[in-house]
Amino acid sequence: MEKHIPLMEESPIERLGEDECWALLAGNDLARLALRRGDGVDIFPVNYTVNDRRIFFRSAPGSKLVDLTRDPAVAFEIDGAEGRVWWSVVVRGRAERMDTDSEILASGVLALHALTPTTTWNYIRIVPEAVTGRRFEAARG
Amino acid sequence: MEKHIPLMEESPIERLGEDECWALLAGNDLARLALRRGDGVDIFPVNYTVNDRRIFFRSAPGSKLVDLTRDPAVAFEIDGAEGRVWWSVVVRGRAERMDTDSEILASGVLALHALTPTTTWNYIRIVPEAVTGRRFEAARG
Repeated sequence: MEKHIPLMEESPIERLGEDECWALLAGNDLARLALRRGDGVDIFPVNYTVNDRRIFFRSAPGSKLVDLTRDPAVAFEIDGAEGRVWWSVVVRGRAERMDTDSEILASGVLALHALTPTTTWNYIRIVPEAVTGRRFEAARG
Repeated sequence: MEKHIPLMEESPIERLGEDECWALLAGNDLARLALRRGDGVDIFPVNYTVNDRRIFFRSAPGSKLVDLTRDPAVAFEIDGAEGRVWWSVVVRGRAERMDTDSEILASGVLALHALTPTTTWNYIRIVPEAVTGRRFEAARG
């Protein structure tokens, strides 16, 4: 239990403002994306970038992310620690596939991968509907 | 971009065996839980413990987790790094609320919190249906 962190519900929770949430989102690039899949739900790590309060990433052809075209509801989460203080930011929104080279280029998503756009990859934008963040202390050390 | 990690689909991916997945699950205690919520999906960090290939955690009364009684499908994810090598384990399954003190005690979940069980908390067990893990290298450093 050396890495024990109490459930966030137990600690005093500080709500983060939207500006701070976006600063944290812009300062990180690995998140977990949750999506609906059939009758269930799935989750996986995703590398992303932020531009103009939109979130961008890409997915390989044939990956699970093709399900997004069927059910675009997603939840996107990052978290981290500063010493004993943990924080988490969650973005809920809808995923949209970008269809034109111009919007893909403008998004900045290609900087993540240093590759030229090809039609065999899917470039995805998350349009946020709710952005929430919390900070909570890892107590009882 | 100092923390840049490429999308996992781009790197050679090593699939982890189920035993290794469970070893990683047992060696960590902070995960992200995704669940269906209304027409959408939600995700949040959760502190957990593992016992006999079940995952246990608890949630405060009135929290989002009450939705689990309506739609018990969940996806549960941990990830981490060993040097340049990243790994991720995902458990998909169904969440069940534990109703009796004896099963709550037997689960070991109380060790997470050093508190006596009370009926005002919900103690949840995830019964896994699929456990998958992958390891992938963070390239282009």
